[in-house]
Amino acid sequence: MRAGLALGLGVGLGLAWLLAARRRRAVREVLFFPSRPCCTEELLAEAEGCDGRPATCPCPLPRSDCSLSRLLRRLLAARRSLELCLFAFSSPELGRAVCVLHRRGVRIRVVTDSQYMALRGSQIGVLRLLGIQVRHNQDVAFMHHKFAIVDKKVLITGSLNWTVEAIHNNKENVVITEDAEYVQPFLDEFERIWEECNPGNYTFFS
Amino acid sequence: MRAGLALGLGVGLGLAWLLAARRRRAVREVLFFPSRPCCTEELLAEAEGCDGRPATCPCPLPRSDCSLSRLLRRLLAARRSLELCLFAFSSPELGRAVCVLHRRGVRIRVVTDSQYMALRGSQIGVLRLLGIQVRHNQDVAFMHHKFAIVDKKVLITGSLNWTVEAIHNNKENVVITEDAEYVQPFLDEFERIWEECNPGNYTFFS
Repeated sequence: MRAGLALGLGVGLGLAWLLAARRRRAVREVLFFPSRPCCTEELLAEAEGCDGRPATCPCPLPRSDCSLSRLLRRLLAARRSLELCLFAFSSPELGRAVCVLHRRGVRIRVVTDSQYMALRGSQIGVLRLLGIQVRHNQDVAFMHHKFAIVDKKVLITGSLNWTVEAIHNNKENVVITEDAEYVQPFLDEFERIWEECNPGNYTFFS
Repeated sequence: MRAGLALGLGVGLGLAWLLAARRRRAVREVLFFPSRPCCTEELLAEAEGCDGRPATCPCPLPRSDCSLSRLLRRLLAARRSLELCLFAFSSPELGRAVCVLHRRGVRIRVVTDSQYMALRGSQIGVLRLLGIQVRHNQDVAFMHHKFAIVDKKVLITGSLNWTVEAIHNNKENVVITEDAEYVQPFLDEFERIWEECNPGNYTFFS
């Protein structure tokens, strides 16, 4: 009887532990900006391949972790798909990361705001030149989202526009989560907006 | 032996269920904007007390749930404290909700962006007139956060500035969560910014 009780309790506690462990393993991170100054050159060069040579950078910035490098790592982890829904996108580092993923064969879809699509310094033109699909809204209201979804599993969202100014100067936040209760609604919202911005429905020069 | 095993298993499964249930109960909600048009007058009038008379509104808008009414309900649930860290705040409905909370004795602290503090239509002046503590950053970079923390327990954050335009026209998102892994870093960030914006350190007319 006692052995059975112990065995049963053990199995149950094991189950509870597994449930808790599964929860613990899920990605849950909060980043704040402005990002501390740090060099992301080696991180990006390594992701780009660099002919197998270890990347080095002569700049004096520290190599330590910062919010920007953490954000880059989460993006560069993509293996299959990347959905981007971004009001403004001018960060050269984030642009480079998206180009790396495109070359790696990751399926990338971008929705952006029509008024910010071709601003000076925007990365949107760079992505379009590479053949990455970009769509935009068709009304005067802002497409003000700033979220990314990696491999349909990890949501990256917050106040941060993907601009140099926002990353290095502003007070901003980014939440990174694998919790399906947050990821799924954003996936659904992306698909809804993607269809709403179908270029077959665009009207120009009305 | 079998009875013991069954009992042990039962206890264990109960533990696992409790753990899962505790997780299920935690607030986890995603709102998207623009909010569908809906009347929030009755919701707000009820919160304001209205001498016990049931509030009525002659407007033709539907009374059903919408993103704005859901956001208002989460705010109006505050009993002890409300931290607001908002780039821009001009929504009359959200302003009214904050005033209700202030009158109810909820301790409210607001941080906003210096450049958006006194814009036409801003609610910040209304809150200051009521005696609500408002602080602002002292640099030219934006205080671009848009988050609220209710009773130090529920985080409300996203792309949404608390403006009429954002609520009724833009594509925006708001994440509402009770998960401590997200709430605690935002609480810490609020306290950090609150101290950074200590008015004892302001310099004017330099």
